Amino acid sequence: MQAGANLPAVGGYNQAVILDAVRRSTDGVSRVELAESTGLSPQTVSNVTRRLLDEGFIVDAGTVSAGVGKPRTILRLDAAGRYAIGVHLDPTVITVVLLDLASHVVADRVIATPESAEARVTIARIAETVDDLVAEAGVDRTRIMGVGVAAPGPIDVAAGTVLNPPLLHGWRDVAIRDELADALDMPVLLEKDVTAAAVAELWAGGTADDRNAIFFYYGTGLGTGIILRNEVVRGVTGNAGDIAALTVGSADGRPRRPAITAMPSVLVDAAISRGVLQAHDGSLGTEEVRGLFGQLVQAATDGDEEAIAILDAAADDIAQGLVQLANLLDVDRVYFGGPFFPVAQEFLLARIPDRVHSSPLWVLPHEIQFERSQFGDDVAAVGAASLVLDHAFSPRPEGLLITR
Amino acid sequence: MQAGANLPAVGGYNQAVILDAVRRSTDGVSRVELAESTGLSPQTVSNVTRRLLDEGFIVDAGTVSAGVGKPRTILRLDAAGRYAIGVHLDPTVITVVLLDLASHVVADRVIATPESAEARVTIARIAETVDDLVAEAGVDRTRIMGVGVAAPGPIDVAAGTVLNPPLLHGWRDVAIRDELADALDMPVLLEKDVTAAAVAELWAGGTADDRNAIFFYYGTGLGTGIILRNEVVRGVTGNAGDIAALTVGSADGRPRRPAITAMPSVLVDAAISRGVLQAHDGSLGTEEVRGLFGQLVQAATDGDEEAIAILDAAADDIAQGLVQLANLLDVDRVYFGGPFFPVAQEFLLARIPDRVHSSPLWVLPHEIQFERSQFGDDVAAVGAASLVLDHAFSPRPEGLLITR
Repeated sequence: MQAGANLPAVGGYNQAVILDAVRRSTDGVSRVELAESTGLSPQTVSNVTRRLLDEGFIVDAGTVSAGVGKPRTILRLDAAGRYAIGVHLDPTVITVVLLDLASHVVADRVIATPESAEARVTIARIAETVDDLVAEAGVDRTRIMGVGVAAPGPIDVAAGTVLNPPLLHGWRDVAIRDELADALDMPVLLEKDVTAAAVAELWAGGTADDRNAIFFYYGTGLGTGIILRNEVVRGVTGNAGDIAALTVGSADGRPRRPAITAMPSVLVDAAISRGVLQAHDGSLGTEEVRGLFGQLVQAATDGDEEAIAILDAAADDIAQGLVQLANLLDVDRVYFGGPFFPVAQEFLLARIPDRVHSSPLWVLPHEIQFERSQFGDDVAAVGAASLVLDHAFSPRPEGLLITR
Repeated sequence: MQAGANLPAVGGYNQAVILDAVRRSTDGVSRVELAESTGLSPQTVSNVTRRLLDEGFIVDAGTVSAGVGKPRTILRLDAAGRYAIGVHLDPTVITVVLLDLASHVVADRVIATPESAEARVTIARIAETVDDLVAEAGVDRTRIMGVGVAAPGPIDVAAGTVLNPPLLHGWRDVAIRDELADALDMPVLLEKDVTAAAVAELWAGGTADDRNAIFFYYGTGLGTGIILRNEVVRGVTGNAGDIAALTVGSADGRPRRPAITAMPSVLVDAAISRGVLQAHDGSLGTEEVRGLFGQLVQAATDGDEEAIAILDAAADDIAQGLVQLANLLDVDRVYFGGPFFPVAQEFLLARIPDRVHSSPLWVLPHEIQFERSQFGDDVAAVGAASLVLDHAFSPRPEGLLITR
């Protein structure tokens, strides 16, 4: 992972390996089993588990007898041993979650993104919200490992800055990572929103299988998070997954860009101009778009042919875009998520899989499995918090004492 | 890497780390320096280097005095200590290279791909060519670590089969890996051609920098190899990099697919129909396409406006495709290679970089560095052979004794 500002590395490689093994054992695990599954010596396992117990990451969860020999102590993750905070900065709403070590959302808050406010005003609001959430949850601040921020791209992960996201007005070269770290006196890391969403899915699953997937984010804007070999793809500056330029052909022979043509606000505008929805005065706020998008989907469900045609073209644009992305990356899974997806999921999931697999441009020798994200609107915030936990859990070769 | 049929793992993780460090030291390296750079204990370094000397991977290259203390023995890679064979199966030609441990092409052969022959006839011809090459080079067969085969996709890496490449007639579900292993009695691995080409670039550079790049392969067909964080991307079945479906907009408002519209044979056809080149009787063989493509480029260089327009549109299609790929993967480097690229490189490299960076759809906060591949026509064969060597050299965490 990209380290955040002063994000503390919890321990060495062996400690991460053991903590990870304890985390994955739903019923707890003994030291003997840990030595077997990790290949580490009983002495190392003993030393490391003692340290993890002392620091409150794991707890002693009783003993079991296993045939002959003395009973074995079972070790379990202490879900309340550490916490992480996740913040999703969206053009419409800011979601803040408090995640425990077992990746459960212990508390969350959603506030409206201050409109046309300076970035630092918004950052101050985020800091207040985090403080409130922590106080309300009654969690000891020393147990909070850090804050992960999921923000719209383009960003500069290394510098911790949000550059100039098209839908987030007034944000240009904002050093959100360091400013929030100063305001909260906590370590903070920054990640692109769609990448954070992919991290949430990655973390929720086991790491036993070797996942290669695209997270298709359907929000105010559209984007993708990419998972290859069980790692999220960040790219040189943390901006991987941008599909603004993705172009597909269409039945009418004109190129279409799904990140525009399938955007909820664009579909709502089309529905208004084609008489499916009533005209509105002035420009639409994002909350109004959400309501109107729901009406559009309802109209399609009720059989309105114009509504069906509008959504059908969007489903086709997304499907043809996914054909290109899947062919390029040879993935076998697509997750759908983001705030607008649940509204239209029945319509979209009834069409997209068939269109992907029956596309004349499909080249892969295997099919794609399509899944809904399990996190709903919180997905990017949960992912950002997961990244903070990830720092403690994931054994990474970079952590080895081998310098190359 | 995806292991081939019985490809022998040379040693453990520490051995790979040390071998890799010796390989990267152009002037040789002492045991003390190895211990410092790898973080391994002097005792481990001593044991591993003794084994590597015994097995002929490295040689003692004299001593140097470094201030006080006794002179240090310098260890160097023994380029002739091991070899690997690379085979590039292209629709037109089959290239076979013999690579030494220092990644030098010691010998190579190019034969015409038998036309409309059964796949097993072609495989027998490949085996003969390998045998001839090895005999002619006078290399002891026991020093050959294996054979890497680069083949057009789609392939099934796990099964070692070529599935149904559009330009390779008569090939359908061919178990080339195992058939060639039987014919040669050598371990064989299979890789997609464009991925192998990317491997060649990866291997030629150091691993000190963290490369994120696209290899744009301009051959009979067009494809890409993807490098993220210094690893090639293979995908679930080894088919990553397919851009047949990639679609771009164009000045005339119609969608264009660069893998078709910028194909050399398509450009030659256009040049014939627009009177730039003389009409030919019957269909063109690939060698004829190569000659005619050279004439087309020459006509453009000489100022023929139709020729310029044809190649200009192709440059634009490639540039717009690269914008999409770079935005998606957040890479900062593009390698161009493949047999047709050198023919048109001056024309294409004079246009593509500017068009990528000035595209209104470009979103990255950094520029792309464009480079020509250094391997010419051999690139995929060299990459396939490199993969075999890679098995010995690259320290990989999967090789650690930690089972998860």
